[in-house]
Amino acid sequence: MEIELAKSYGFCFGVKRAIKIAEEHPGASTLGPLIHNNMEIARLKKDFNVSLANSLEEVKEGQATVIRTHGIPKNDLKKLKEKGGEVIDATCPFVTKPQQIVEEMSEEGYDIVIFGDVNHPEIKGVMSYATGPVHAVLSVEELSRLHLRERVAVVAQTTRKIEEYNKIVNYLVPRHKEVRVFNTICNATFENQDAARELARRADVMVVIGGKQSSNTKQLYTICKQYCPDTYHIESKEELEPAWFAGKKLCGITAGASTPEWIIEEIIGKIREFKV
Amino acid sequence: MEIELAKSYGFCFGVKRAIKIAEEHPGASTLGPLIHNNMEIARLKKDFNVSLANSLEEVKEGQATVIRTHGIPKNDLKKLKEKGGEVIDATCPFVTKPQQIVEEMSEEGYDIVIFGDVNHPEIKGVMSYATGPVHAVLSVEELSRLHLRERVAVVAQTTRKIEEYNKIVNYLVPRHKEVRVFNTICNATFENQDAARELARRADVMVVIGGKQSSNTKQLYTICKQYCPDTYHIESKEELEPAWFAGKKLCGITAGASTPEWIIEEIIGKIREFKV
Repeated sequence: MEIELAKSYGFCFGVKRAIKIAEEHPGASTLGPLIHNNMEIARLKKDFNVSLANSLEEVKEGQATVIRTHGIPKNDLKKLKEKGGEVIDATCPFVTKPQQIVEEMSEEGYDIVIFGDVNHPEIKGVMSYATGPVHAVLSVEELSRLHLRERVAVVAQTTRKIEEYNKIVNYLVPRHKEVRVFNTICNATFENQDAARELARRADVMVVIGGKQSSNTKQLYTICKQYCPDTYHIESKEELEPAWFAGKKLCGITAGASTPEWIIEEIIGKIREFKV
Repeated sequence: MEIELAKSYGFCFGVKRAIKIAEEHPGASTLGPLIHNNMEIARLKKDFNVSLANSLEEVKEGQATVIRTHGIPKNDLKKLKEKGGEVIDATCPFVTKPQQIVEEMSEEGYDIVIFGDVNHPEIKGVMSYATGPVHAVLSVEELSRLHLRERVAVVAQTTRKIEEYNKIVNYLVPRHKEVRVFNTICNATFENQDAARELARRADVMVVIGGKQSSNTKQLYTICKQYCPDTYHIESKEELEPAWFAGKKLCGITAGASTPEWIIEEIIGKIREFKV
């Protein structure tokens, strides 16, 4: 049986970068979990002594602290710096960008609309850079309740769909003199999905690796299952069953955005041992 | 029989303003016809000695010249000034605006996309203000053939439909880092159409006044005819027939964008004379 990895899978660029930054700062702590994967957090603790501070209050005076990919609100950054320890910024560059845009556009007098979830850490951070009116909305319906001035600048949460973003833009264009649209969407999630779909079309068995609670892994599973009925969602090699692979020709592998490479490698190794 | 004028009809703001400007400059000539209505052009000549120059070449040295609502290309303006006569700018402010936007955005390094007809005088004028790359397109298909850089600024011909404009925007947003959308559409045409529709729904006879070749008048006729089968398209009072109004209760009146008020008044006067 042949084993093939999806063209795009697992960690996105920003998460890979953040983990590398954490590894380069042994003894530091991260402000919030760096990734939604407890095994990876345990590995960083064990191999690099990188610990976890769940909130600003938990950060000790003088403690070196890594800011995770989502970024943090401007005011939290100030407080963090006041703790006196080194601040190591692993904010994803795709998140730093909307932060900068919001700050600049705000200063230039634009009303800011963010297409994203006001409760998501990324959006809390991005919003905090506004110096004037700023609103986060998830639908045209929410948007229609706002009172915006003539000039509006718009950014999107990195994980939003472009089609949905266009709906927000389409609502604004007829109603405002100027709508300045910044495409801040990151395609990483969609690239994993597209690659999973392409592979599932050809494979006769698919293994999707990632947390059982991880929403992006579940989405990958749903996509693969559509094209390849023998699709299995697992978190670790212990769940693998040899019977899944009996008589199969091509085993496709993909993994959710929080699944580290070493877990994927372990699973591939175990499948090879089945010698089907 | 009651006679009711549509809430919005005839000349738009820009044309009214241009005619007023022409009347304030007796002896001037206009560069191109001020309006697509020969009776009105004849009136301006007779009452205000405002003549017509069909091209720059026809403008005599030292001749005071009125620029019509569409505006003219930057270079033509220069040549016109070199003729030494007074230049009277009756460019519609809704057209001056996209000219200024294109100039500014071009200087700020944006690629310019104009949603409009490259052969229309308004668009020729607007385009001429670009100091960098500029393209006029009428469809997503034309747009897809362009090679644009990361930052794009978009303006629309004043008479375009907003839904069509949004299609252009929707194509650009996913493909560019920043799309700066200026809503330069003027609602005058659509206001006349909406008002005609509303009136035709209630009227049992409709008179649509305007040139037989005028495309916006023909559109008004089509809209009215849909709601009021007894709709008539006429250019002047001579065409009216008393039989149209026999037994009718409400006569609705509307007029195309090039129809002067005095023609409308003549026609209403004539209908009243029928005493139905």
